[in-house]
Amino acid sequence: MNKDWNTIEFLRHVRHDWLNKIQLIKGNLDLNKPDRVKEIINEIITETKQEAKLSNLDIPQFATKLLVANWENYYFRLEYEVLAEEKCQITEDETLTDWITLFFETLNQHIKPFADNHLFISIHSMVDGLRLYVDFNGILINAESMSPFLQQPCSKQLMLENIEINNKELVFEVWMNREKTGK
Amino acid sequence: MNKDWNTIEFLRHVRHDWLNKIQLIKGNLDLNKPDRVKEIINEIITETKQEAKLSNLDIPQFATKLLVANWENYYFRLEYEVLAEEKCQITEDETLTDWITLFFETLNQHIKPFADNHLFISIHSMVDGLRLYVDFNGILINAESMSPFLQQPCSKQLMLENIEINNKELVFEVWMNREKTGK
Repeated sequence: MNKDWNTIEFLRHVRHDWLNKIQLIKGNLDLNKPDRVKEIINEIITETKQEAKLSNLDIPQFATKLLVANWENYYFRLEYEVLAEEKCQITEDETLTDWITLFFETLNQHIKPFADNHLFISIHSMVDGLRLYVDFNGILINAESMSPFLQQPCSKQLMLENIEINNKELVFEVWMNREKTGK
Repeated sequence: MNKDWNTIEFLRHVRHDWLNKIQLIKGNLDLNKPDRVKEIINEIITETKQEAKLSNLDIPQFATKLLVANWENYYFRLEYEVLAEEKCQITEDETLTDWITLFFETLNQHIKPFADNHLFISIHSMVDGLRLYVDFNGILINAESMSPFLQQPCSKQLMLENIEINNKELVFEVWMNREKTGK
């Protein structure tokens, strides 16, 4: 288990997240806004479906990094979605996990702490390869200093493409060709 | 982590439990029963408070056994409450965990599978000792065969008291004296 969290601590995080959702429902019920409550519930269900899809991709290490990222005290809030769900391979799991770990840490060092920083990752796992669409919005400190990381990905199997960066946004795609990894 | 559950599997269980609660809220909203929804939300908040109290008793192994019991495929459903919250000790954690593990397994072997079996444990951790009030309701197969377990607790530090047993109910108290364990 990541960070040697024991079960107790792990459930504490989960409970905290879910209680926030329940309080949001309760608050809107008290304000007599049943339609808003239904919207919130639909958002929760959509979110859990994405969590289930991510969990089913067969890349458990990578999925775990994403699932627990918001408990890791990074200075950004992560959201993700899974839009194409071709099953993955062990080699992809290792490569993607190494890369995302380095990316989270590098990004965290280059953004303004406690600013409104959001990271959105869209995952497309297709027959010929896997593509991540990465979109950071927030405040980047000295955006150019991210360049070494963006120019030199941590694995030959991964390519970073269509990079756009300024002080408020970082957008790029990660492409992993399945043919090269033996499928 | 118990049963070598990895994070993915663990979160799958948690997600499933919480989605059941959300569906219950959604169903009652759709039936236009906002008062029932408020009741359900209050029950959820109460339940999570008990979970937090249990987590704060400083008996992590014992707490974990209770927290994950309903994912262990036992033929009973566990509920618990924490009514007195004096902090516990490491020796108590080991003794209680050994005992509860044996109790869950023994009980599971002596109840009718897939019957409406409920186990309720009330935890009172006081200055002079810790007391568990255990109440099983359901169908016990051959209740007498539970006797060896009930007569001979797994540790000298634990005493089982006020035992009542028939084919539909098993009630007893577990007493652990703090003076004997060195506090």
